[in-house]
Amino acid sequence: MAYRVATLEKLIEQFERLPGIGHKTAVRLSFAVLSMSEEEGNCFVNAITEARRTVHECDICCNLTDTERCSVCSSSNRDEGIICVVEEPQDVIAFERTREYNGVYHVLHGTISPLNGIGPDQIRIKPLLTRVANNEIEEVIMATNPTVEGEATAMYLSKLLKPFGVKVTRLAYGIPVGGDLEYADEVTLSRSLEGRSEL
Amino acid sequence: MAYRVATLEKLIEQFERLPGIGHKTAVRLSFAVLSMSEEEGNCFVNAITEARRTVHECDICCNLTDTERCSVCSSSNRDEGIICVVEEPQDVIAFERTREYNGVYHVLHGTISPLNGIGPDQIRIKPLLTRVANNEIEEVIMATNPTVEGEATAMYLSKLLKPFGVKVTRLAYGIPVGGDLEYADEVTLSRSLEGRSEL
Repeated sequence: MAYRVATLEKLIEQFERLPGIGHKTAVRLSFAVLSMSEEEGNCFVNAITEARRTVHECDICCNLTDTERCSVCSSSNRDEGIICVVEEPQDVIAFERTREYNGVYHVLHGTISPLNGIGPDQIRIKPLLTRVANNEIEEVIMATNPTVEGEATAMYLSKLLKPFGVKVTRLAYGIPVGGDLEYADEVTLSRSLEGRSEL
Repeated sequence: MAYRVATLEKLIEQFERLPGIGHKTAVRLSFAVLSMSEEEGNCFVNAITEARRTVHECDICCNLTDTERCSVCSSSNRDEGIICVVEEPQDVIAFERTREYNGVYHVLHGTISPLNGIGPDQIRIKPLLTRVANNEIEEVIMATNPTVEGEATAMYLSKLLKPFGVKVTRLAYGIPVGGDLEYADEVTLSRSLEGRSEL
């Protein structure tokens, strides 16, 4: 029979469960993990268990943190009157990279998606409403993805937030910087036309 | 200051050390590991520690195994008179996939590479010589990679093995099946011409 190593196969299987990892990559990663020195291997496993043990959601914005409050919410330099609502913690990293945004965030951890059985109660909408109700918030920026679910969630949230008398805005749609008009899809192009500004 | 989570960053850093994993993939994998359920997370960590604890080199062929001898060496259906010498355990998997080879293997765990400070003693050459000296071996197939190091290792080994009166062969060079002659490099093409066979 063919060459088989049960524990190695189990490890490959575990790597294959990770998003975007196919069989060949899983094999490569498994051999890399096996060839680590004692110390490297312990570092790797500790990093996983430590991160899983300590990382939790921030009390205020639901972003991931390993301290009581996330570094944005606990900073004194951020404008707490503006909340940028995003789908995932990765989106916060993307906004922070721009170095342009100085408000705070709210991470929904998903979008409303009835087809996948995800209703308003499965994502962090209630903490956002409580936050807007109990604090002086000027503006809530809807920064969900420009997908069907992202749009629907933004619309739904804006309806819930309007009664609080808060300004609700949405990210601009348009042609990506550095892109080529020739390859822009019709919807993006017509949205970009609608949102045109004077020079 | 920007959004920072120390333990998450450590985890991302650890994933980045794996071969072929860049920063974006490391971030994606880290968030995937964090979003695992308690049970999934334990399975993942256990698979790593179990594989690292149990997998070792086979006494005979130096291939990786979690039993005393690897499944090829302990099989009664394999021809022990033919040894296929490969660089890495992954190469054994590749050969086993062909379902054509019925001999046994020897895994060198690298190639001789003086530039990287790897001499004959750093790879599993001695166990191969002992094996050929103490058993009735008909043929040793050099299946190292067609790279400078792979070639040099094959040449070096064949010189060491010839005195034992064993037949030493090398994998055929040629155009890959399904490839396009137009894109074949000159060396491959001329090797393929040299090795032509009658139809």
